[in-house]
Amino acid sequence: DAADILNELPIKLREEVLAGLDGVLRSQVIDLLRYDENVAGGLMAKELITARVSWTVVQCIEEIRKQIEHVSKFYAVYVVDDQNKLLGRVALQQLILTDSSTLVKDIYDPEIISVETHLEDTEVASVMRKYDMESIPVVNVYGQLVGRITIDDVVDVITEQAEEERQLMSGISEDVEEDDSIWRLTRARLPWLVIGIIGGLISVQFIGIFEADLLRITAIAFFIPLIQATGGNVGIQSSSIVVQSLANPGFVEEGLWGRLAKVFTVAILNGLLLSLIVLAANLLIGGGDERLSVIVSIALFAVVLAASLVGTVTPLVLNKFGFNPALASGPFITTINDLLGLGIYFLTIHLIL
Amino acid sequence: DAADILNELPIKLREEVLAGLDGVLRSQVIDLLRYDENVAGGLMAKELITARVSWTVVQCIEEIRKQIEHVSKFYAVYVVDDQNKLLGRVALQQLILTDSSTLVKDIYDPEIISVETHLEDTEVASVMRKYDMESIPVVNVYGQLVGRITIDDVVDVITEQAEEERQLMSGISEDVEEDDSIWRLTRARLPWLVIGIIGGLISVQFIGIFEADLLRITAIAFFIPLIQATGGNVGIQSSSIVVQSLANPGFVEEGLWGRLAKVFTVAILNGLLLSLIVLAANLLIGGGDERLSVIVSIALFAVVLAASLVGTVTPLVLNKFGFNPALASGPFITTINDLLGLGIYFLTIHLIL
Repeated sequence: DAADILNELPIKLREEVLAGLDGVLRSQVIDLLRYDENVAGGLMAKELITARVSWTVVQCIEEIRKQIEHVSKFYAVYVVDDQNKLLGRVALQQLILTDSSTLVKDIYDPEIISVETHLEDTEVASVMRKYDMESIPVVNVYGQLVGRITIDDVVDVITEQAEEERQLMSGISEDVEEDDSIWRLTRARLPWLVIGIIGGLISVQFIGIFEADLLRITAIAFFIPLIQATGGNVGIQSSSIVVQSLANPGFVEEGLWGRLAKVFTVAILNGLLLSLIVLAANLLIGGGDERLSVIVSIALFAVVLAASLVGTVTPLVLNKFGFNPALASGPFITTINDLLGLGIYFLTIHLIL
Repeated sequence: DAADILNELPIKLREEVLAGLDGVLRSQVIDLLRYDENVAGGLMAKELITARVSWTVVQCIEEIRKQIEHVSKFYAVYVVDDQNKLLGRVALQQLILTDSSTLVKDIYDPEIISVETHLEDTEVASVMRKYDMESIPVVNVYGQLVGRITIDDVVDVITEQAEEERQLMSGISEDVEEDDSIWRLTRARLPWLVIGIIGGLISVQFIGIFEADLLRITAIAFFIPLIQATGGNVGIQSSSIVVQSLANPGFVEEGLWGRLAKVFTVAILNGLLLSLIVLAANLLIGGGDERLSVIVSIALFAVVLAASLVGTVTPLVLNKFGFNPALASGPFITTINDLLGLGIYFLTIHLIL
């Protein structure tokens, strides 16, 4: 029926279609509409207490008395005009403290923050956090009040967000918990592990190319874990800082280039320090090939730079295309960083040694 | 003075000392007390609206009128006895809907959930989430009302918790943000990177022990990244699942042994599948040493088991000793897993090949 067809349309378009329907039919269709779980419309409760702007306080209280059974927690009465357009709110304490013959229009607070039905739940959460709100009204594209979201729903959104991020960072591909079935737990881990394995198998072929170098100087192999681990750590650190900035929108003022310049400076400093530590350690403890020690440090420096760059750019790109940027801290990018690190290491050796 | 000395004592002991002081002095000292930021006492606001159980509704409203300027958001009036002991609450809507001569004792809800001052903020958050509360009263060890915590404070706690976890998982040792100074960003990353480097340098020495094996069969080196990456991924996945369970207390019913049995079963399944994939790939593509291929798969299987075990046990141990278990998903444990993986790989080769 009509509602089903409308459910297939994007929310904005859908509400424009609705506006073409007449009163009774429209409100019936609206009741049947579904919203995605992850937008304001899907998060909101439709039960709320509204008051016409022309009412008196005593009429408000009468309305509360009527609705109280249906509305589980409420903090304010929302004030609307004759077209159900949201005008403002009256806090409960205001109702308690005001004389009952006062008109709503004289006491309501018109400076009200609301969200539209199609806003993403994480955006709703950040608006409510920013303004320390315990509930927020939801309006459609015409500014008509359709529901409200309370802070306890937002707490759930924030918690789920953190859990999703943890799973992405750790490369678990389903929403599993420790007491799920063994089969489900195994399956949830497998995809990322297989990607890691594929990366590992590519490494096998890649290092194979340099077999002649390895035959000449076996010690080249000794440094593979050092190069790889450092590349991985630097990459995860870099992406994590970007993910944090993206989670707090409006936080970072700088543009892409300023950001990259800064990341590069930090990478150069870290890279220099680490390379010098490794060089000193190799020369002091190793007693091995001095030429190789120098080359290892040069390669390490290059790996730190490359991993910083990949770690910074990847979450930005993922975010741009609508993916969760926390993916960048997970095993997929780590695998790419591993390969990149190996590539830089063996090419440096091959070219210089 | 007295408050400073008391600040040094554990909260419980401190409140027992306070009970020995007489009325006026006690309340003066209490006002001067500081609580740690991360317990209920440090999170709470002391401004709240209380009503004696013997009052009428009209007296309540009078009290609200007096206090309204000091209390920024309130959802209920807390009901106390003559000793300021918390008895229950009256929701605001109840006050609106009740006749003003009604007695508080006839309308208050005695089934109230409160927390004690010394409860950790993360525990407060999980209590409030569990019961969908918008505010929770805080009492001292004698059940006396001392403050209240609102949900917006808890939202901040949950958000900070998620950010701390992200930083621990990514090995960043200070609470830095992208627009901090270059020096601060560099310094925050360095400790974990140096630990990774130390791990890498230990690998150098360790692989050096097996130089003779490497000279005999260079291809041994080809598989180092494969072994290491898989160990790392399995370890992070395992610890992440445990961290998630620990973040939702009371969620996992099983004891340690049931848990480990399950982890081991999942590890055996994943290990078998991955080993077979690698074996098939090596035999099909590689065309190399068949004996080595079999040994690589055996070592890989052992590494998956060991990394699962370390990944599961470490966060449990960290949690037991009061550390944040998310540390276990960070670079420190990854470094240990790397070394463990290399150890298993080279020992397997040395013993079998």
